Amino acid sequence: MVDHGELITRNKLMLRVWWDWKGIIHYELLPPSKPVNSDLYCQQLMRLKQEDAKFKVDRWERKEGGGGITCVLQDGRVFEKAGVNISIVSGTLPPGAVQQMRSRGKKFDQNELPFFAAGVSAVIHPRNPMVPTIHFNYRYFEVQDKDVPRGRPIIVEWERDARHSAGSLVRLKVEELTIVITCLIFLFNVESLNTGQDNNNTTTLHDGKQWWFGGGTDLTPYYLFEEDAILFHRVLKQACDAHDSSYYQRFKKWCDDYFHIEHRGERRGVGGIFFDDLDTPSQSEAFAFVTDCAEAVIPSYIPIVKKRKDAGYGYHERQWQLLRRGRYVEFNLIYDRGTKFGLYTPGARYESILMSLPLNAKWEYMNIPKPGSPEEKLMQVLKVPRDWLHIEKTATV
Amino acid sequence: MVDHGELITRNKLMLRVWWDWKGIIHYELLPPSKPVNSDLYCQQLMRLKQEDAKFKVDRWERKEGGGGITCVLQDGRVFEKAGVNISIVSGTLPPGAVQQMRSRGKKFDQNELPFFAAGVSAVIHPRNPMVPTIHFNYRYFEVQDKDVPRGRPIIVEWERDARHSAGSLVRLKVEELTIVITCLIFLFNVESLNTGQDNNNTTTLHDGKQWWFGGGTDLTPYYLFEEDAILFHRVLKQACDAHDSSYYQRFKKWCDDYFHIEHRGERRGVGGIFFDDLDTPSQSEAFAFVTDCAEAVIPSYIPIVKKRKDAGYGYHERQWQLLRRGRYVEFNLIYDRGTKFGLYTPGARYESILMSLPLNAKWEYMNIPKPGSPEEKLMQVLKVPRDWLHIEKTATV
Repeated sequence: MVDHGELITRNKLMLRVWWDWKGIIHYELLPPSKPVNSDLYCQQLMRLKQEDAKFKVDRWERKEGGGGITCVLQDGRVFEKAGVNISIVSGTLPPGAVQQMRSRGKKFDQNELPFFAAGVSAVIHPRNPMVPTIHFNYRYFEVQDKDVPRGRPIIVEWERDARHSAGSLVRLKVEELTIVITCLIFLFNVESLNTGQDNNNTTTLHDGKQWWFGGGTDLTPYYLFEEDAILFHRVLKQACDAHDSSYYQRFKKWCDDYFHIEHRGERRGVGGIFFDDLDTPSQSEAFAFVTDCAEAVIPSYIPIVKKRKDAGYGYHERQWQLLRRGRYVEFNLIYDRGTKFGLYTPGARYESILMSLPLNAKWEYMNIPKPGSPEEKLMQVLKVPRDWLHIEKTATV
Repeated sequence: MVDHGELITRNKLMLRVWWDWKGIIHYELLPPSKPVNSDLYCQQLMRLKQEDAKFKVDRWERKEGGGGITCVLQDGRVFEKAGVNISIVSGTLPPGAVQQMRSRGKKFDQNELPFFAAGVSAVIHPRNPMVPTIHFNYRYFEVQDKDVPRGRPIIVEWERDARHSAGSLVRLKVEELTIVITCLIFLFNVESLNTGQDNNNTTTLHDGKQWWFGGGTDLTPYYLFEEDAILFHRVLKQACDAHDSSYYQRFKKWCDDYFHIEHRGERRGVGGIFFDDLDTPSQSEAFAFVTDCAEAVIPSYIPIVKKRKDAGYGYHERQWQLLRRGRYVEFNLIYDRGTKFGLYTPGARYESILMSLPLNAKWEYMNIPKPGSPEEKLMQVLKVPRDWLHIEKTATV
């Protein structure tokens, strides 16, 4: 417990952590001249056989507290745009944000709260219109609801290095598609958050601290292959079922409700899972669930990419893909809470928040797919979400 | 004063107007089989020499009251996308919208208010990156703040036909660019709104009715030609000066403040004029001002289009134009009040609201123009708005 400027070096992500006189923690990523483990992964990705695009890696700091790493690949052969964002921020939540959390059911005594948030998000927009876009985002949030006596800061310890991620890289051997692995580096590191505070069965830790996890994974196809949607949902359900038999059904519906482009009355894609405010049954079990969800990304998505990435397509299919990417932009800029929360936060790094937007998008007035066309087939499942794992029940909709 | 179903035929736009038992007016555009004057203009535009694109014209109705005409041209030779939207809607403002108006300074006694709104908006995205995008929007708003006794509905009379617009068409002779003229049809028709209630020096008419005008015209270049920005602002200033010598300065600043992409710290373009809640000095004088603003669109923009539409450009300039169009999408979907208000209104016609979006847009991660490049020159004036009519004062910024 050092009062200021403790350098924690056990973790390869190399963060400087300190806290101010109010007991609020601050994080600072080391200057770019120092080696950072995630750089090495990204450099590897740049040298991949099928992917000749540049992988731009930026470490950034937020002057209000914290920072992150943003990796973006553009104009690749397989991926038109793929972004991974890791952020670890802390500071004081403004009254508006606290109010927003209250309206979601959280109870806090104060109007301005010290917070700590760590998250990873990724959006992968493939080039081939037969390959769906995937998005996932997993995050940990901590809010301090009572004054912390000076000298008793909230301490975050980083113990695990990136060995697990390296293991994943070797195991998967789908080199050109391993960008998503980068994200796992972070999740494995987060695992040791709040060491010694595990097995709490309440979300309020000592000193009035509340924590929760949130996140989800969802799929946005341009052309519908039912078998892909079924595979995707089946793998997510397996990850859910290992923790709670009610999770998949609840989080699948939450996903359909959340990724809703309301003004068009259509979903962004074929869904997946989505949840927020997950603070049961314990911190370690909730984290184990989130970790399993993140690990499910690979087996739920990579087989689809491998199967479809070289499928034939023409101008018509590309134009439809661009129109659907316009809808993706509409959802992200108009409805997505994370994007709005991010852009309205002072000092937000907008380039990292907006990396989720596709490289190219299109808006045509009154584009309505022809009856019976593959495009209309997709629209039907976007308008009425299906129960993919019991498809016979909803296939006639 | 007919109780229901009065057909007002004096105006060529042919609207059916009635009111319900609450005294709320309803508007219905005639079925498409009937000739509507604006169709004729749009058909003319489709046959223009240089513009071989289809001009899609849709009349639409809003089941909550009112309707409109949306004209969109896509993939033309001069214009990549150009949209004109005329809407005449009425109904009851929900409490949220009333609250929003209160926060802007309007005072109302009731929480739900009968309203009438008539507006015209247009966005023109040219194909050539040397030609700027123009947007304009002029609207009239009326709110009934007290109960209207049954049998004393708010009556809107339509007296003027489209002769004025036809006159404008002949006078201008810039055939391929006359899409904007279509909009004027509507404005000339609005002129006779509330006949007999003119020369009120207060915004509260009898029966507790409040009215105001709003709108503006702004220019979004992709490459900066100072002479174009100066011409544009000079013409707008002339329109303003004819009515109030303080208007231009106030509305120019209002425009710079409004069209601000806050998360990027840059303006959408080089500005123009923007105002809201204009309810002085009288209804007729305010309308005359708005009409002059709309008429200034032609001389402020057409000379720029004529001068630049055949300028040479390459792949690099096109890519920059697409990136800037991405910023246009960001502003419209995240910040524009009209778009947000529209999309959140139940029964809104989203295709008409979103016609302002460009045909194509692009998002690249961390695209930063090279120092000294034409792209950086534009960015400088987007970050620090200039006083275009006293350019020597701000040119060194």
